[in-house]
Amino acid sequence: CCSCGLRSEPGVRLSRRGALGPTGLRGEGHLSKRKGRKMKFLFLIAFIHLLPQCTGKPLRWDDCHQHTFKEIKREIAGYSDIAKAIINLAVYGNAQNRSYERLARFVDTIGPRLSGSKNLEMAIKYMFSVLQEDGLENVHLEPVKVPHWERGEESAMMLAPRNHSIVILGLGSSVATPPEGITAEVLVVTSFDELHKRAQDAKGKIVVYNQPFINYKETVKYRLLGAVEAGKVGAVASLIRSIASFSINSPHTGWQQYQSDVPKIPTACISVEDAEMMARMSSRGTKIVVTLKMGAKTYPDTGSFNTVAEIVGSKYPEQVVLVSGHLDSWDVGQGAMDDGGGAFISWEALSLIKDLGLRPKRTLRLVLWTAEEPGGVGAEQYYQLHK
Amino acid sequence: CCSCGLRSEPGVRLSRRGALGPTGLRGEGHLSKRKGRKMKFLFLIAFIHLLPQCTGKPLRWDDCHQHTFKEIKREIAGYSDIAKAIINLAVYGNAQNRSYERLARFVDTIGPRLSGSKNLEMAIKYMFSVLQEDGLENVHLEPVKVPHWERGEESAMMLAPRNHSIVILGLGSSVATPPEGITAEVLVVTSFDELHKRAQDAKGKIVVYNQPFINYKETVKYRLLGAVEAGKVGAVASLIRSIASFSINSPHTGWQQYQSDVPKIPTACISVEDAEMMARMSSRGTKIVVTLKMGAKTYPDTGSFNTVAEIVGSKYPEQVVLVSGHLDSWDVGQGAMDDGGGAFISWEALSLIKDLGLRPKRTLRLVLWTAEEPGGVGAEQYYQLHK
Repeated sequence: CCSCGLRSEPGVRLSRRGALGPTGLRGEGHLSKRKGRKMKFLFLIAFIHLLPQCTGKPLRWDDCHQHTFKEIKREIAGYSDIAKAIINLAVYGNAQNRSYERLARFVDTIGPRLSGSKNLEMAIKYMFSVLQEDGLENVHLEPVKVPHWERGEESAMMLAPRNHSIVILGLGSSVATPPEGITAEVLVVTSFDELHKRAQDAKGKIVVYNQPFINYKETVKYRLLGAVEAGKVGAVASLIRSIASFSINSPHTGWQQYQSDVPKIPTACISVEDAEMMARMSSRGTKIVVTLKMGAKTYPDTGSFNTVAEIVGSKYPEQVVLVSGHLDSWDVGQGAMDDGGGAFISWEALSLIKDLGLRPKRTLRLVLWTAEEPGGVGAEQYYQLHK
Repeated sequence: CCSCGLRSEPGVRLSRRGALGPTGLRGEGHLSKRKGRKMKFLFLIAFIHLLPQCTGKPLRWDDCHQHTFKEIKREIAGYSDIAKAIINLAVYGNAQNRSYERLARFVDTIGPRLSGSKNLEMAIKYMFSVLQEDGLENVHLEPVKVPHWERGEESAMMLAPRNHSIVILGLGSSVATPPEGITAEVLVVTSFDELHKRAQDAKGKIVVYNQPFINYKETVKYRLLGAVEAGKVGAVASLIRSIASFSINSPHTGWQQYQSDVPKIPTACISVEDAEMMARMSSRGTKIVVTLKMGAKTYPDTGSFNTVAEIVGSKYPEQVVLVSGHLDSWDVGQGAMDDGGGAFISWEALSLIKDLGLRPKRTLRLVLWTAEEPGGVGAEQYYQLHK
């Protein structure tokens, strides 16, 4: 998941140069007339992918006016047989389960792939190699400087009102505590508003945010800005209820942002359950004391790559339809869902078209971003270089 | 949850001495005629609680013949106004949220309460005190010898095909590994059948059970007997996929059973995800090597208590309607659900009746069991002493 507060949705993306119409596949396909409903579903999906380009803020508004929805629909309808062939290959043919198996082998072999880590480097080499083996064109790497932050050892222990080991997950880019940790009283708040009202109470405390979960976009502000807001009022650390509706003792992590004019304080997420417990204790007037230890380290930015592969277009090779996902993940999982799934489905899209001997009119470009988790670093550089 | 493979359901239980009819409450209550549907619901619940006594194996079959369902239904219907008063007090009156707040304070104050622990001792003292404060009758403790097992430090690290920290939770009563741990190759099986067929392969290995989750009763056999079955074929340890449909990196624990004629090997649960990953690796012919370290210790049985409180019956005081839950919990949670909820709802049942100045015909007895998790130890002793 990205640090901007909006979950990235893997799938078809148009590059700045891309035309709004479909790729325009060329190829033979004689298929049965069954699966009509599946086709309709595919059209719907394709349509949904195209829709935001015209309803939201378009990349190039003038392009939007080149094609009406009706024209796009008519053009897509012309690819019915090809779409059937793709679906048959993916769902019933040799490619059945292929993407899942590729992904499983990848995550099982490499494991977690945090920005700047050796594992991410391995992952990029692995993908470079398998994309070449897959026979895709223009397989290459585009260098990117990426953040390199390491979690280190971390723990939190409640000392009062009773001993209780609080499970934490440090937030990406957090500074460390001193080696002996930070021991301080806790101030529980449910919002930034409450924190500002109780600014006098926050000085020297560990601020615990027990914000209710509204939705990801709304609630993730506490993860992103919790340390900054607590730092402004003199807190010594911040612990943030995971941006989730429940936790099963598994706090979440994610990137967070310091501001240059605010003291940098260590910050981590805690489980929903521990946040609620501390809120209950606090509401009874019970004094809570916690020792927080975090050994996080930020190293200099390190070399990494966006990984690129293509099927070059036959008619408009300079027009690029971009499919993408990111290869980096968090360090506490395998990144199978976020974003291995997106990356491997994007790769599969190219594989299926190649396997059927199809050649699109426009170039299909797969980009496997690096360092999405620390703020879409690979994608931002790609945008700057390719706009 | 209990170690027998059947989740205990807190609620009304009839003692061996108990009559099958309802408690028989006596008291005034003039209530509005609204909430008719709620009454019906209450009757249904009461009826459902009584039903198994006659449909399953009855405790005393002859008692069952003393009351027909019709008679029971008629008798229950006579308490309509009293039931309304109880519901109003619990849902809209002074007792609103009381049980939740009592439970929250209890679990927040005491924390986890494993059989044999100081925390369980504190919990029993706490309950003895608050049940007296609540004005209940015959508040007393009945001594029970209970198991005392402690988890200690535990960890598992995959060394091949790659370094990966496997999150584990040792199973209750498991023996420890040597201090340096056990390092061995893994054999992944999906069932006891497969283990027996591959018995030759299991010798000297760490058996990983990747059994599919069917339901708790069916699947929990692997947790209960996994170590014994692996021990029979010469395995050095067993790791068992959590008895759950998914894990979020949080393996489960629970009690397990050794057999006297089978070597005792250390055993722990792992997450569903790690079990599936090892199964995938194994299916590709990849050699998996794991180091397992467990510092578990079994101490001599320790003194504990069933905690008892009553409202003595006015007409048949010797006939006892028993409501119960267990005070002990696992060491890795607070036991708010299992079984704080059951225990505190049972207490609430007595509190509500007492608060309304009602006096049942039969004795209402609250028993807060000790040491349910290691196999219903407190309840078993109560049964032996009171049958």
